[in-house]
This record gives sequence, C-alpha cells and structure tokens, in this order.
Amino acid sequence: MKIVIIGGVAGGASAAAKARRLSEDAEIILFERGEQISFANCGLPYHIGGDIQDRDALLIQTPEKMHHRFNIDVRVETEITDINPAKKTVVAKHTLTGEEYEETYDRLILSPGAAPFIPPIEGIESPEVMTLRNMSDMDRILATLDNTHTRRAAVIGGGFIGLEMAEALVHRNLSVSLIEQAPQVMAPLDAEMAEPLHDTLRQQNVDLRLNTGVKRFTLEDRGITLTLMDDSLLKVDLVILAIGVRPETTLATSAGLEIGKTGGIAVNRRMETSEQDIFAVGDAVEINEFVSGDPALIPLAGPANRQGRIAAINALGGKAEYRGSQGTAVCKLFDLTVASTGLNEKALKRQGTAYEKVYIHANNHAGYYPGASKINFKLLFSSEGKVLGAQATGLSGVDKRIDVIATAIQADLSVYDLEEVELTYAPPYGSAKDVVNYAGFVAANVLNKSMTQLYSENLPDALEDPQAILLDVRNPDEITQSGAIPGSINIPLDSLRQNLQQLPKNKTIIVYCAVGLRGYLACRVLGQNGYNTRNLAGGYYMWQQSKHCRPVSNTERKVA
Amino acid sequence: MKIVIIGGVAGGASAAAKARRLSEDAEIILFERGEQISFANCGLPYHIGGDIQDRDALLIQTPEKMHHRFNIDVRVETEITDINPAKKTVVAKHTLTGEEYEETYDRLILSPGAAPFIPPIEGIESPEVMTLRNMSDMDRILATLDNTHTRRAAVIGGGFIGLEMAEALVHRNLSVSLIEQAPQVMAPLDAEMAEPLHDTLRQQNVDLRLNTGVKRFTLEDRGITLTLMDDSLLKVDLVILAIGVRPETTLATSAGLEIGKTGGIAVNRRMETSEQDIFAVGDAVEINEFVSGDPALIPLAGPANRQGRIAAINALGGKAEYRGSQGTAVCKLFDLTVASTGLNEKALKRQGTAYEKVYIHANNHAGYYPGASKINFKLLFSSEGKVLGAQATGLSGVDKRIDVIATAIQADLSVYDLEEVELTYAPPYGSAKDVVNYAGFVAANVLNKSMTQLYSENLPDALEDPQAILLDVRNPDEITQSGAIPGSINIPLDSLRQNLQQLPKNKTIIVYCAVGLRGYLACRVLGQNGYNTRNLAGGYYMWQQSKHCRPVSNTERKVA
Repeated sequence: MKIVIIGGVAGGASAAAKARRLSEDAEIILFERGEQISFANCGLPYHIGGDIQDRDALLIQTPEKMHHRFNIDVRVETEITDINPAKKTVVAKHTLTGEEYEETYDRLILSPGAAPFIPPIEGIESPEVMTLRNMSDMDRILATLDNTHTRRAAVIGGGFIGLEMAEALVHRNLSVSLIEQAPQVMAPLDAEMAEPLHDTLRQQNVDLRLNTGVKRFTLEDRGITLTLMDDSLLKVDLVILAIGVRPETTLATSAGLEIGKTGGIAVNRRMETSEQDIFAVGDAVEINEFVSGDPALIPLAGPANRQGRIAAINALGGKAEYRGSQGTAVCKLFDLTVASTGLNEKALKRQGTAYEKVYIHANNHAGYYPGASKINFKLLFSSEGKVLGAQATGLSGVDKRIDVIATAIQADLSVYDLEEVELTYAPPYGSAKDVVNYAGFVAANVLNKSMTQLYSENLPDALEDPQAILLDVRNPDEITQSGAIPGSINIPLDSLRQNLQQLPKNKTIIVYCAVGLRGYLACRVLGQNGYNTRNLAGGYYMWQQSKHCRPVSNTERKVA
Repeated sequence: MKIVIIGGVAGGASAAAKARRLSEDAEIILFERGEQISFANCGLPYHIGGDIQDRDALLIQTPEKMHHRFNIDVRVETEITDINPAKKTVVAKHTLTGEEYEETYDRLILSPGAAPFIPPIEGIESPEVMTLRNMSDMDRILATLDNTHTRRAAVIGGGFIGLEMAEALVHRNLSVSLIEQAPQVMAPLDAEMAEPLHDTLRQQNVDLRLNTGVKRFTLEDRGITLTLMDDSLLKVDLVILAIGVRPETTLATSAGLEIGKTGGIAVNRRMETSEQDIFAVGDAVEINEFVSGDPALIPLAGPANRQGRIAAINALGGKAEYRGSQGTAVCKLFDLTVASTGLNEKALKRQGTAYEKVYIHANNHAGYYPGASKINFKLLFSSEGKVLGAQATGLSGVDKRIDVIATAIQADLSVYDLEEVELTYAPPYGSAKDVVNYAGFVAANVLNKSMTQLYSENLPDALEDPQAILLDVRNPDEITQSGAIPGSINIPLDSLRQNLQQLPKNKTIIVYCAVGLRGYLACRVLGQNGYNTRNLAGGYYMWQQSKHCRPVSNTERKVA
C-alpha cells in the first residue's frame, strides 16, 4: 500500500502519522511545498508580538523527526503540479531546482489548506501589503518590523488573524489601525456580542474603522497610503491583509475533483472526494456544519487534525466517519477572551431557522472571591429546546463555558439538560449555579412560558404601542450611575409588590433591570397579579451593547 | 398554599426563592437555626486565609433582603424541634428566648444540611478543637488566630475543607500539620492521582502525616497536644477537625421519616420523603449517584441548589425530577487545581464494576505558548466505552476538562465521542487535540485493541514472568535526568525499527516511555512486526506517581 499525502501541516501531518500507526508496511510519502511541515501556524502572531520569543518553538515537527519517528518519506519544497486519477499518479516538482518527476499512489490524501484571500484592489500587490500564512510570511513581517521606520500599521480584516495581529503589533509598539468592512469584528459573533471587543481595541488605542474598506493602496517614497471607502486617507508603513482565506482547489479542480457549492473540495463523511482512492482534508474541503447539516467551509486546526486521522483510517481500509464541524473557536484579544460554538443568529436568520435566544451576564466565579469578572453569554436554541449555538466574551472562564456547550451540542443536549449539568464548583472556579446552568434556566423559562422576553432590537417597535409601559426595576443609584432607557418609569423590584397600584392593568408592562434577572422576578410578580409582561432580554446591559446594531426608538430620537 | 422550609442555606434558600417565583400567593416561611441564611459557606476558608478580606462579602442574602425581594417570612435563630406529619405541623423554638410555638404547613421542605463528624476521641471536646461549618465557627477560628500565641495548627482530615484550611492557615503564617488516616488526601481521587497534592503540601512546608490519626487530645497550659496512632506527639495551638460531615437526620428520624442505608434522609427523584407532603434536599439526603445509580451521600452546593428548585416545583404541584449527583467537584490547593467527576477506581472496585483506565499527561495549552503546564488526567470507562469518571490535577485548565467530562457523563457520551468533541482551540487556551480528545484516543485504542495496556500496579507481577522484557523507549538523556524502571533495557523509539534484532520474538515486550505516547507508538511498530506487547499506562510518570500505592517489584527490591 502506497499512500501519498499532499500538504504537511495539520491535516496532512495528522494523516501521515495515523497512517503509520495503522500500518508499518505502508509506503507513505508526504509532499510539502514549503520548507517546513507541521509548524505551529496558530502561533505565528504570537511570535510576531513577542509572546513566543523562540522562533524554533514553532517548529513542532521537522521533516527529519517525522522520518525517524514515523518512517515517513517527507519531501519538502516539492509542489504537486498535477494529479492523474486514472493512472493514479501525481507529478511532483521541486520548487528550487524545478526538477519534475511522477509518483504513483494507491491512496492519495489532499491537504492543501486555504490561502489568504486577496481581493482585486489597486496597489494590493505592493510588498508592504502582507499576508500571514506560514513561517516565511512571518519572517517577512518581522523583517519589516525590525526596520525602525516601521511605526504605523493597518490590519485589514477583524477576524481571528486580524485581531491577533492587531494585538501583536500593539505589543510591538506600533500605532495600529484595524479596518473591517462589516459593522463588527469577529464574524462568528452576533453584532451585539462584539461590542466588548470594540471596547478593548479602543482601550488599547487601536484606531478601529468599522463599516469601511480599502479602495486603493498607493505606494509612497516611504510607506503606503490607504484610500478608504469614504476617501479618507491612512498612511502606514505596513499592511496586514487578513480578510479571510479561500480553499486551495487549483490542483483538485485540474484533476477533475468535484468542488462543493461553498468552493471547497467536495468530500463525503469518509473524507473521500469524487474520485476513487482520493481523500481530502482540512481547510480546503467543504464539510457539513454539525448543527444544521449544511455544507460549509470551517477552516480550523482541530477539525483538520480529526479529518486527517479519519482519511488515514479509511485510506487503509478502516471505517471512520467525520461528524461535521461545529466551528468551535476561541480568540484572545489582549485581556479579553472571545469564544463561540455552533450557529450564530446571523446564520440562523440566513437559513430561515426558527430560534430563541437568551443572554446571561454573570460572574466567572463566586462574586465574593477575589478577581471575579463578568462573562457575557448568549445562547441560541430551538423552540424544542435543542441547543443551536453559543457565544461569550469575558476576562476569564469563557473558553470553559463554550467547551461545555460544544460538548452539549455534540451530545444533542437540550436547554433542559443545561439546567441540570453538574459542573465543578468552588469559589475560585465557578458558582453553585454556573453561567451554563443559568442559561438553561432562562431558556427553559422562555420555553415553558414562565417569562416572555422582548429583545432590544424590538423595543423601539414595542414602545410605539400606546398600551406599553417601560418599567425599570433597578435601584435609583444604578440609574444615577449608568442611566436608563428613555421613557422608562422606575419602581425598584424590592418595592414592586407595594406599588402595584401605580401600574394600570390594561397595559403591557415591558420590564427591565441591569441584566435580566430582576426583570424576570418582576415579571413573575406582575404576571401573577394579572399583568401582561415582557422582560427585556439581557436588560439594560444588552440594550446598551446593541445600540450600534438595533433601530433607535422615537423616544431615544426625541431625547437625543 | 403554605410552604414551610427548614434550613436557610443552599438548598433551603433556593427552594424558597423558586417557590416564590412559582407562586405569588403561597405563604412561605423559612426557618433557620443560625443567625444568617444563604451565607457563602464555601467561602469561609478563604476569609480565614485572608483572600476574601471583607466578612460581609460572605453574606450573600440577608433575611431582610430575602423578605423584601421574595416576600419570604424568614425566621432566623429559630430551631424546629419537632415535626408532626399527621397534623402537618412543626414546633419552632427561638434559640435565644426559648419561646416555642406551633406552625402548620401544607408542604414542608427539609434542608437541615450535614454536620461535621466528631469521632469519640479523648479530649476532642476541647475548645481548641474546632470545626468549620458556619460563620460563627469561622469567627471562633479567626479569634484564635488573632491571638499572637497561635503559631501551630493541626488540620485533621485531607478532604476539601481540610485542604482549604491547611492553605488558609499557611497563608496566615502558621506552621501546619495535616493528619489524614488514609494513605492519601482528597478521597475523590485515586491514590496515584493524589501525589501532586502531597507534593504541593510538602513544598508549602505543611507537615503531612498520612496513614495516621489522633488517638488522644491533651489540653496543655497553653495549646493542645495530639497523640497520634504511633504514639508520636504533636503540640499545636489550634486543631481544625475536618474529617467529613454526617447528614443532620435527628429531626427527620424523630418525625418517622425513612432514612436510607447511607444514613441520609430517603427521598425519591421528586425529592419527596416517605411522608406525604414532606420534601428533603441538600447534604442531609441520600440521592442516587448518577453513573452507578447507587444510593449515595454527595454533600455539594450545586446539587443542593438544584434539589431545592426541584422540591419547590413539586411542592407547588409541578413535575420535576432530580437526575442524581455525579460528585463533580474542584478544589484549589495553593497553585494546584484538583477536580473530579463521576466514579473513581476505588468506587468501581468496591462495586465490582468492570472498568478500564487511561492516563494522559499533556499540556493545558499549546506547549509553544508561554505558561504551558501539564494536566495529569485519568479517565475511567467501561468496556463498552461508557465514560464512568475522570480525575485531574494541574496548575491551569483542570476545571475546564473536568467540566467537559461532567457534561459528557450527563449526556452518556462514550470515549469514542470524546475523540470527536470539538473544543475551543487557540494557543493560549488549548491544543488542536485537547487533553479530552487524547483521553478518547487512548481509550479507543485500548478498546479496539490497537494497544494493550499494563498498569503500574501490575508491573511487578508481569516482570516475574521470565518471558517479559521491559523496554524503555525514551532517549538516553531523559533516563540520565529522571532515572528508569529497574531492569529495563533502552532502545529509543526513533531507532526502534533499526534495532528490532535486539528483541527476541518469543518474549512479551513491556514498553514504556515518559507518559505513554511513545510507548504506544513503539507498541504499534513492534506489534506489526510480530511482537506481543504491552504499554505501561501513563509511562514512567505514572509509575513514579503510583510508587506509594503499588506493590514493589523484586527487581526494585534488589536494586534498593
């Protein structure tokens, strides 16, 4: 059995190692275009920023080690220029010498990855406009940073790499502009959940430009000028282009492999392409999104590794199926952690899938234990209670909660299960009722109709109704400190029972508090006293967080 | 509807609040013997140690706040001395005035908690021997610590409270002895997993005395002398007794409620006791352990809160069932975190349940990112792959992995599911293949027989076989640095294929490396070359960790 693998990072390297574990006899050849295999591509921004000081730390596996340990014939600096599925051969070309030769295969595993997307913008080919995909890209950026004239940088794109690079460049004491065409950074989040990231960026003096893009790059004697969509100019010394990646499908296409509608190489759950004995894995393939089952491109390291293992098992005659990717992801942005899993609201709307949502704003651990900080958490679920996705930001404990939800989604748990999940609790780690439990409680309250929610984006419309009363149940000192929603009246929760006569019964009472908990308690009191109530989801906090992405009410307009 | 609740901490307070959310009309009376309700009992050691400086921070809910917010009739310093289920009345007695009165109920919820176990040891009634259950206990301990003569302390018992108190007293600059009758602290762990705790205690200059107990306490002019089982003496100024708790069942027993075989109040899944309209929750009740279904006492705050909610729902005519407790728990011990969920090996052995186990010793996050530290992780599972329990220690990320396993157990996931779980990954948070995934991989390898394990405790026996060869596949520098298992020969993994002729085929090759990964790879190479192999589970690391709790081999004896 002769297994040929194209691409030596994540998926390819995993496939090679797994294939060897399964078979000592197989001949395994690993082709890699670059100099290195299995380098830590997720670590590149951290070496640029100086957190990882030793460049060699990024070289997880060398061709030599791979050869000694796994008896893999690793051929770096070798590009595969053609695949002939009928003959079961590939054409290999050494990138330096240009030497070409044919290699046969019994099974072929493609792991070509994805390349940074480079849109057709005038001047984008300037050497000052750089992308970050491999060690050479990193070295090129570092060389530019070592030049003392490099003081200002623009990062185009507010995704994972854009954010990590913005932070890295701030660590390098550059003045950084971050340009993002969307109204928010970090597309996996919904807009109202991304505000803490915008706040963090601004606190770190990143010049954040949302809702705009680059029209033109103009090379100057020193540096490069960006002309933005509104014709404003930005002169910098370095541009990092990080607006996303596209699957590398040139080779697959020329070999006649089927390409999916998302633009990735089409594979089945066994990671088989449309051609017999050819598998494909990693960022280049179209997989099924786990929750919806829809075809998707989810270029992440974890899934790539798993797909590599699965392709190797199947290539050697075993039986393994890939379940799909949930898009579980996490990103550090200075002190903030942002993480998500499953579908977001934008995706659910696009798909036309019905959903409910709840917001939790609660401590990462017992509030009385030092260092407590808030986690801002959003849970999406179906009307049957199925968990569809979650998003969270915070200083600590964010990855843990998203990992719990990721596991819950994998297990098809419901929000009722989240109520019961028994998580670790001691004051330094959590609370007896964890954020995840709370999300389950609130979601269950919504589904069993012990509370009717109103979302901030629907508040302006709801307030148009002359029968609506907006009731703030916070304490007066909270209002003095943080303000209130225009048009609200205030009766603190703890004196609500004594002041019911202030509220006419034929009205709809829209209740809010700081984050939603007291609002819920107030709705319980009011509802059982015959009132029609709605609780503002996530309270005043989420109303504020959503201000850039919700309609403005007439009252707000008047007050402004 | 009149609901009477006995006990105002965790379960009782949760029940009261939930009952009110469900019904504005219900009359709800909450009796509490102490001065406070709903105080942060888990926070007490941290106030003693000084981490939580403000004593008031521990008062989560006051009787006044509970009254204003939830319209609960809170009666503190009031003990219930009798229950008459036939008449549906209780007898209340004010602890200060002695005033007694009868109160009727429609539904009664008992949440009496558990009391520190005080064994019949001579002199144990001395005021210097203290327990820690409530704020008054804490204040008493603090008063003693404020005395400048208090310099030495003994903590009896190495469970959660014992460990937290040992740390607190070290923070207060006391010289601390920790005395534990078992061969290990932290009973939820198996012995070989507890070594890092012992190491941490010793590093912090805690005088750790395992395998011993106190025979006698002798009051001195100043201080108190402990006579231990081996007649050694220990003179200290303060003793903290933390050898466990016993359910408070006096009231329940005298009311004729059924007591379970573990000594807790018997309840069904609706939290109903044997008497109609009487519910019981929290540390006093016998629940079912989630994994085995066996009756158990699991006194933890999270379960108590959930049970309180469930009792309230059912008391008000709703339908809710408690699923059982998994015993998910976490404890901070200086820089170390220890956590566990589900069953441990000791419990499985006691029950006679068949199980398999794997050990993972892997980084909390990408090794190349600064601050990586090892998590020592043990997974227990059935031969069908059902996850039975997990234990872990480490400096960071321990609670996260145990929370994932706790969720997996709740969802009845298998080790094959753990292979596929898609967790958050970025270099500061995890690895593309997480500790949990690795545990799944290794467990699956065991079950599908791509590797046969040998546990450290069985190595001495296995080496008695003259057909056994013990093969160390680490590199020579590792052996120089950390030593090797007596009687082993060394062929590094990376040169194994070239040195197969050194290994006779008719022998059983017992392979080990540092933690088990290279041992597995070596077994794959050897197995496919016709050798009969076994891989030492957890490698040299677990062999060392288990040295205090496994038999010593003849070779070890000879070498020693």
